[in-house]
Amino acid sequence: MYRTNTCGELRMTDVSKEVTLAGWVQTIRKFGAITFVDLRDRYGITQLLFGEQLNKELEENPPGREFVLQVTGVVSERSNKNPNLSTGDIEINVHSFKILNKSAVPPFTIQDDTDGGDDLRMKYRFLDLRRNAVKKNMELRYAVNRAARNYLHQHGFMDIETPFLIKSTPEGARDFVVPSRMNPGQFYALPQSPQTFKQLLMVSGYDRYYQVVKCFRDEDLRADRQPEFTQIDCEMSFVEQEDIIDMFEGMVKHIFKEVKGIDYTAKVERMTWEEAMWNYGNDKPDIRFGMQLLNLKKPSSVYTSKKDQPGLINGAGFKVFDDAETVLAIAVPGCSEYSRKQTDELTEWVKRPQIGMKGLVFIKCNADGSYKSSADKFYNEEKLKAIAIAANAKAGDLLLVLAGVEERTRKAISELRLEMAERLGLRKANEFKLLWVLDFPLFEYDEEGNRWVARHHPFTSPKPEQIATMINNNPVIDNAADYLKHPYANIKANAYDIVLNGNEIGGGSIRIYQRELQERMFAALGMDKEEQQHKFGFLLGAFEYGAPPHGGIAFGFDRLCAILGGSESIRDFIAFPKNNAGRDVMLDAPSSIDKKQWEELQIKPNLK
Amino acid sequence: MYRTNTCGELRMTDVSKEVTLAGWVQTIRKFGAITFVDLRDRYGITQLLFGEQLNKELEENPPGREFVLQVTGVVSERSNKNPNLSTGDIEINVHSFKILNKSAVPPFTIQDDTDGGDDLRMKYRFLDLRRNAVKKNMELRYAVNRAARNYLHQHGFMDIETPFLIKSTPEGARDFVVPSRMNPGQFYALPQSPQTFKQLLMVSGYDRYYQVVKCFRDEDLRADRQPEFTQIDCEMSFVEQEDIIDMFEGMVKHIFKEVKGIDYTAKVERMTWEEAMWNYGNDKPDIRFGMQLLNLKKPSSVYTSKKDQPGLINGAGFKVFDDAETVLAIAVPGCSEYSRKQTDELTEWVKRPQIGMKGLVFIKCNADGSYKSSADKFYNEEKLKAIAIAANAKAGDLLLVLAGVEERTRKAISELRLEMAERLGLRKANEFKLLWVLDFPLFEYDEEGNRWVARHHPFTSPKPEQIATMINNNPVIDNAADYLKHPYANIKANAYDIVLNGNEIGGGSIRIYQRELQERMFAALGMDKEEQQHKFGFLLGAFEYGAPPHGGIAFGFDRLCAILGGSESIRDFIAFPKNNAGRDVMLDAPSSIDKKQWEELQIKPNLK
Repeated sequence: MYRTNTCGELRMTDVSKEVTLAGWVQTIRKFGAITFVDLRDRYGITQLLFGEQLNKELEENPPGREFVLQVTGVVSERSNKNPNLSTGDIEINVHSFKILNKSAVPPFTIQDDTDGGDDLRMKYRFLDLRRNAVKKNMELRYAVNRAARNYLHQHGFMDIETPFLIKSTPEGARDFVVPSRMNPGQFYALPQSPQTFKQLLMVSGYDRYYQVVKCFRDEDLRADRQPEFTQIDCEMSFVEQEDIIDMFEGMVKHIFKEVKGIDYTAKVERMTWEEAMWNYGNDKPDIRFGMQLLNLKKPSSVYTSKKDQPGLINGAGFKVFDDAETVLAIAVPGCSEYSRKQTDELTEWVKRPQIGMKGLVFIKCNADGSYKSSADKFYNEEKLKAIAIAANAKAGDLLLVLAGVEERTRKAISELRLEMAERLGLRKANEFKLLWVLDFPLFEYDEEGNRWVARHHPFTSPKPEQIATMINNNPVIDNAADYLKHPYANIKANAYDIVLNGNEIGGGSIRIYQRELQERMFAALGMDKEEQQHKFGFLLGAFEYGAPPHGGIAFGFDRLCAILGGSESIRDFIAFPKNNAGRDVMLDAPSSIDKKQWEELQIKPNLK
Repeated sequence: MYRTNTCGELRMTDVSKEVTLAGWVQTIRKFGAITFVDLRDRYGITQLLFGEQLNKELEENPPGREFVLQVTGVVSERSNKNPNLSTGDIEINVHSFKILNKSAVPPFTIQDDTDGGDDLRMKYRFLDLRRNAVKKNMELRYAVNRAARNYLHQHGFMDIETPFLIKSTPEGARDFVVPSRMNPGQFYALPQSPQTFKQLLMVSGYDRYYQVVKCFRDEDLRADRQPEFTQIDCEMSFVEQEDIIDMFEGMVKHIFKEVKGIDYTAKVERMTWEEAMWNYGNDKPDIRFGMQLLNLKKPSSVYTSKKDQPGLINGAGFKVFDDAETVLAIAVPGCSEYSRKQTDELTEWVKRPQIGMKGLVFIKCNADGSYKSSADKFYNEEKLKAIAIAANAKAGDLLLVLAGVEERTRKAISELRLEMAERLGLRKANEFKLLWVLDFPLFEYDEEGNRWVARHHPFTSPKPEQIATMINNNPVIDNAADYLKHPYANIKANAYDIVLNGNEIGGGSIRIYQRELQERMFAALGMDKEEQQHKFGFLLGAFEYGAPPHGGIAFGFDRLCAILGGSESIRDFIAFPKNNAGRDVMLDAPSSIDKKQWEELQIKPNLK
């Protein structure tokens, strides 16, 4: 061992002990004849004092920033104590030292507020990982991993490893594939998730399964997507939705307690997908604040159970609203005194291509009880007041109204709601609010193929009372424009998401466990018998031998860590992430392979 | 929840409670008007009693073997208790039941002694996993996983995930590669181990790292090799070999205690690689029994520190020994009375192609103190006695002598030693003996390329006192036949293996942490600067910024589980293994991919 102690553990009680430390040189400061060095390791920083007698040696062998140093000396009380450092009461009076390894000058400073840009830090990730900020993220990640495992273990779950070299069954996202040298022309695929394996394990009777497992998706990368990511993957047998919710709400609360020291005792709220979309325009609403949507107008074929209030805006001759498919409003608290410049800026904000609206209508609910709107021409104060009341606006609030086609407008008002909350400081970093969103749609419309795809995945069970609707209707969509009127549009699934502060951290479903229903589901997705058999024959086969009712959930581990760490970027919580183009710039991967490898795999390039 | 209790937990104290159970039908037995069903789940088996009143319902809806059944009834004391079952004191007096799912007749019986052959059980792995024998293996695997993690956590190790989509740097085994759609013509590779990443983490200051992680090797498969396998991968900074040995000996002992209830208090033995090869003919000797080798004759250029005893056999005119490069003997205890038939059978055994010897010489050390040999013509009793004494043979032992070329003969005597121990019952299933093998050779001769390859891997450090030998000698081998005389043949590494009952369960080394030495090492392996930079530029770069001294170890998790579970086959301890041809016969993978996938990846087949 190169050391007797770490750089984080020595205290006043150790004074006068002789110790050996090893670590990295954080800083060097010379004061006249003596030299102070801050020595850093994973556990902390300890101040070293090199007296005059070592000056000659220091001159011959001068340590520099990030050099690896081993020192032996005596723990002494500091005259100038540093209360910000756990070791700040002591220093080491060095009597001998050895440079274990030198360091070139790092391309950026190894400090919390580094001067290194993103690209440089990715290329020298091994140096970036030395920074305290990044190390804290890795420690948090490990703590979350550990807390989840411990909770699941205590609840009888078993970690069972599922294979990585599996079969390509692309449904939705693309598979990464692996050419097989032993079977030329054939490929393995890397799993997008262990979904079918965990279901097989339920058929095998394992009852409670978990895994913290890498998954792979060959998607066109967007910001903050990684081609490989980690899931906390879980499955249970003989359960209903309520059992899953209980169990995994408990897990997240346990993680809060263990990792953040937070007692999450509040009841976790729940809402249906339809309520979330209706009230927040979003299936993962941030419920740390209000500003719920007022649905002034909706197309008749969506949210069939919900009533809009077109009477509040119709008949005023305001073409913007009259021509719109959807009109939605939010009441922003305390912003009635926004200046013209401020409302203009908001209008520009909603007109940006990312939001894509044509304009913004506002209604100021003045403190004195009067109302003022950019649509004053069409709505008198009485009508403005009625709208404001419907939106739950109070005196002093600013009503923002968007109008346009359903999907885009709902998305836009949701974005606007989040933006206003951000500006008003309502999205507090140290406040955590969980939410279950239930009853997701079973199907999603795929515009490109004019067909239905599984919103969650093809193994999710429909609500029992809607199975007949699924089976008795032809999945074919005759009129693409009217897809929302197809009976499939309103079938709901036994599917649920858990949302934290406006981010989906996990999602799952109660599964289909009957062969016949699974075949019907595949058929509804346009898969003929042959394709079903080729892709999922093993699962259909397994369902013939006593499959139990089962369900599960998967947590996006990277994202969960990021949110708990107060960040929006998952990359900060991955030791060796890829960049947004899917490249590892440190390794320079992907890269070319040898001619011999091409030959052995019996493939060749076919570049367009 | 479909149940109030599991099938493993009800006891006499639960009598008269109403319970609901769910599980699989193990057996059905009819006795007159009543029916007994054994219901099975992960936790156990509970006997169900269906009274006369349910007969009509049972007739209408007859449950069969492996049906999924839900029953409600009252816990009652059994008249006929079953002491072999933890629930054997009670049964459930069923008052209602429901068939949750039917089952076809399984292709083999779900029992410990199943009638299913290997291929059938692989195809229906989801049914094989139901068998108690297989379930126990999975439970043991999880227990080992958990014990290892807990130990490492307690000792300050952090689980840090390393990437799976990395760069292809084939050294030794082949990489599995993954074509990149976003970078046509380029590939990721799947890691053969996280070796370079864990070293980077040491450079980053993480100090103590671990991971239970999948690794991939595209090898020509032998029996009991899997293309994907799991390692317990560990690395530490500021350590020497002794620190690693301490730490991981502790881990294995902790696993023994937690998983097997064994207090492994005995000192773990150690020997050098040279001693292992000299005394056992094997670098992973089973030391549960003796039968050490007598080295009668060795080629002069191997085991330079060891002395053979050619004087015991030379000058007798026995051509078999005189012409042989190597002559080795073992004393098999208590077998002096072997019949001619038995010694003939042993001779046939060593002549099998797997062993490849030309014959076998034996010396019977009779109980009466006389000696009898198949080479009586050449050696009188006095000479036979001298050999027997040198081999530590006692009266009643049988000396077996093999002669031939060094490598094959040493391997053969090692195999023979294990075979004889097996026959004599000396390899006891419930005896566990650990051993550290130290000071492995740094290099290994690659016959095909007539060059040196790294025996462990290119990151292993040579013994400090032999660095000069490495640097100052040209790696080129002028005369292939005399490769053992090249100075590289005797350079030893700071490398170590941990061996359990004759199986290597882990291996590691103290690493090179200086850029210059690492470059010298790559050069010794025939890698020019350009190739070094292309393949390992990131690591060489990292070594410039303050790399600490570090070392580590990786355990073969699958094998460790198999040995602890008393099996030789790792496949039995993997939930979804591949067969010996690397195929998953359940999934039917690898398999063809869609035309669209070929096109998107911009590759095409190039079949020979």
